Amino acid sequence: MATVGYGIVNYDRNVFRVIQYGVIKTEAGLPASTRLLEISNDIGTLIETYKPDCAAVEELFFNSNHKTGIQVAQSRGVILLECCRRNVPLYEYTPLQVKQAVVGYGRAEKKQVMEMTRLILKLDKIPKPDDAADALAIAICHGHSSGVQGKHIDNST
Amino acid sequence: MATVGYGIVNYDRNVFRVIQYGVIKTEAGLPASTRLLEISNDIGTLIETYKPDCAAVEELFFNSNHKTGIQVAQSRGVILLECCRRNVPLYEYTPLQVKQAVVGYGRAEKKQVMEMTRLILKLDKIPKPDDAADALAIAICHGHSSGVQGKHIDNST
Repeated sequence: MATVGYGIVNYDRNVFRVIQYGVIKTEAGLPASTRLLEISNDIGTLIETYKPDCAAVEELFFNSNHKTGIQVAQSRGVILLECCRRNVPLYEYTPLQVKQAVVGYGRAEKKQVMEMTRLILKLDKIPKPDDAADALAIAICHGHSSGVQGKHIDNST
Repeated sequence: MATVGYGIVNYDRNVFRVIQYGVIKTEAGLPASTRLLEISNDIGTLIETYKPDCAAVEELFFNSNHKTGIQVAQSRGVILLECCRRNVPLYEYTPLQVKQAVVGYGRAEKKQVMEMTRLILKLDKIPKPDDAADALAIAICHGHSSGVQGKHIDNST
């Protein structure tokens, strides 16, 4: 996994405020284990810096590219680990749930999700890169669901 | 992943000696992240106890059970991370390479691999459970290959 997107938002009385967003990038040429270590360190730093009350991740589905799928799942394992290590409760949502929560329509196109993400977060532009925008959409989804609809990852995956 | 097998061997001048083997078991009912944390802690303890010069893992292939595949890859990510965090060089081998190295025949049956593992390690019985025996076979493979044939994981996955 070359890029891990993240988005940190404050959600209070139905109002979202963006705190930070971005991507963790690791060089494609680096060893898999080194890249996992970088992701682990960066996630740790984000948690320690922003002290989130909870974290939400997207449920993983494998497509035809198994090699990429393995890398993504390995990275995801490290992300879940670092959240658990620091007692950050984890939730997960399917892409359908994210679209439903952000656009109100489970079959919404990616572009619509991004535009709604921008509007909900009162941003001038659609957040870049895409992985960061995706992460912010998941954060909105979790805020709206307030952990009620979201599968607490403790019962899944 | 319910079970992570491990095998720790000493390899000196073409002679193998078993130091320890076993499995890390996590309860199926536990949260995914908690299980990853247990695996992480147990791998850490193994490394700190036995201080291995290197570690070898099997290359991952996904079968039709995607859910299991995701769990296995997430666990593998955590295992690679803990090795890297403690500067244990990582190598990986395909099942074919392991069979070739242990039995001398890439299409050997599982039973043959286990029996040869027992003989090479001079054990009275085939090591149990199977995941531990698999891990010992990978260790033999790495010993025989001496890291020459094995793909240093730094260049792959």
